[in-house]
Amino acid sequence: MNQQIINKLCIIGVGLIGGSLARALKKAGAVGDIVGAGRDVAHLEKAKALGVIDHFETDISLAVKDCDMVVVAVPLGAMQSVFEQIAPVITNDMIITDVGSAKGSVVKAAQAAFKDIPATLVPGHPIAGTEKSGVEASFPELYENRRIIITPLETSSTTAISKVKSMWQACGADVIETTIEHHDEVLAATSHLPHMLAFSLVDTLAKMDAKNEIFDFAAGGFRDFTRIASSDPDMWRDICLANGDALVEMIKKFSDDLQKLSNAIEKNDSTYLKETFERAKKARDEFCDSKNINDSLE
Amino acid sequence: MNQQIINKLCIIGVGLIGGSLARALKKAGAVGDIVGAGRDVAHLEKAKALGVIDHFETDISLAVKDCDMVVVAVPLGAMQSVFEQIAPVITNDMIITDVGSAKGSVVKAAQAAFKDIPATLVPGHPIAGTEKSGVEASFPELYENRRIIITPLETSSTTAISKVKSMWQACGADVIETTIEHHDEVLAATSHLPHMLAFSLVDTLAKMDAKNEIFDFAAGGFRDFTRIASSDPDMWRDICLANGDALVEMIKKFSDDLQKLSNAIEKNDSTYLKETFERAKKARDEFCDSKNINDSLE
Repeated sequence: MNQQIINKLCIIGVGLIGGSLARALKKAGAVGDIVGAGRDVAHLEKAKALGVIDHFETDISLAVKDCDMVVVAVPLGAMQSVFEQIAPVITNDMIITDVGSAKGSVVKAAQAAFKDIPATLVPGHPIAGTEKSGVEASFPELYENRRIIITPLETSSTTAISKVKSMWQACGADVIETTIEHHDEVLAATSHLPHMLAFSLVDTLAKMDAKNEIFDFAAGGFRDFTRIASSDPDMWRDICLANGDALVEMIKKFSDDLQKLSNAIEKNDSTYLKETFERAKKARDEFCDSKNINDSLE
Repeated sequence: MNQQIINKLCIIGVGLIGGSLARALKKAGAVGDIVGAGRDVAHLEKAKALGVIDHFETDISLAVKDCDMVVVAVPLGAMQSVFEQIAPVITNDMIITDVGSAKGSVVKAAQAAFKDIPATLVPGHPIAGTEKSGVEASFPELYENRRIIITPLETSSTTAISKVKSMWQACGADVIETTIEHHDEVLAATSHLPHMLAFSLVDTLAKMDAKNEIFDFAAGGFRDFTRIASSDPDMWRDICLANGDALVEMIKKFSDDLQKLSNAIEKNDSTYLKETFERAKKARDEFCDSKNINDSLE
């Protein structure tokens, strides 16, 4: 039995993430009316033609009018400007959440824009996505069985927290609460660092003389390994700038371990190599088991 | 129209690679009799029960008797010992190839074992595989539309080269010739380095305090990125030892570029970040286009 959780929803930034949220909530019958907001009229018209949103506005202060839920799904670099446009028209019944991949920077942006952070603001981050972007790539199942991390603030009201949770649960997601600091540290490790490695690897190889053969000789493992290097460059520049401290620290940790591995190769230290590969394989296989992933079926 | 290319084939090391070759040649009707060789009787019995091989021998000098093709599919660390067992019984009609992921070390092993490298030896390397290992994981389609790199030696006879090519073509593969040095350099870049990054990343994360949340919060991108960290630790230790020079050089090249990226993050150099990510995305997308890969269909 589905239930309407949101009367009027405003999605600011109707791309893969915002668009998939709209589609999922519509499919679940959990939302009344959806207004899309953004700067690009052609893009918003496409989102409307696709049935993802019901209306659109390019003026954010008009778009959020009478909305009981506002989801800010813009790149991290645009957060503060969006919050500044919401600030003058915010009401006590208007719950605000976001989908940013780094949460410390979102809270800073909110502090700068709102001065006093409203009780209705509950930062969030869906651990979902593909390397595609844009509303054309959105689909209603994106959040099914995925984790949504919310990082409520001391100021966040229980009503607001509960409504943000219900919204994501209606999309089939599993909602987890944690702190901003912990979120940013864990995401630096599990998402931001791997993206840096993939981007950096592809770029290193693309600069080599043997570039053509390198990509030509690459097998399926390379394709999987580098898939995330096809992600949106603007989004990842913003994530680097927003979560720089945690990310630089993770790169350092990783680089130190990689240097140790390189030293072991140079010294023909077969014990070190085998033990490292065994520990990694065990951790990775356990991770897959725990997620009920059977790679052989893919 | 299929055609028998090999009368009696000996596969030394009946795992994923050797087993899939046997299955593919049988399916293509390209082989008469297949004898498997190895040290583990239980394992060879399983390969026979699965129909992958017709007979087996644990004594390699007996296994290769009357064979017109011998494929050495053992880990790189076992190559020399296998060549030493073949050396006393080799004939002029016995073509020998291998499937090792590093070719310089295979030639060194052959030089040590044979003294004069026989004209019938043609080193080879199928660019195919999965993170699984063992004969249970073998399947006849593994080599379809995959690249097989052969690195003929100055001593290799044209008859031998041609027969090794025909064998792989019968499996549906595309055979390319290159030099040993070029093979080892390109593979260090495209396969060995990515495996080091995946193993090292998973190991770095598995050592962190937040280990459990890290794996718990990981999304699909992380799963793809780390798939190759589930590869066989023994095999990868051997590859590191066999192609150490080229691999250490690639790790250095990669680490230098990663350090530059880290510096750019620290300095909020958004231009450097965006340009790097754009170049990488472009190279990766072109690589996929050239292979007619449509990720959205996977």
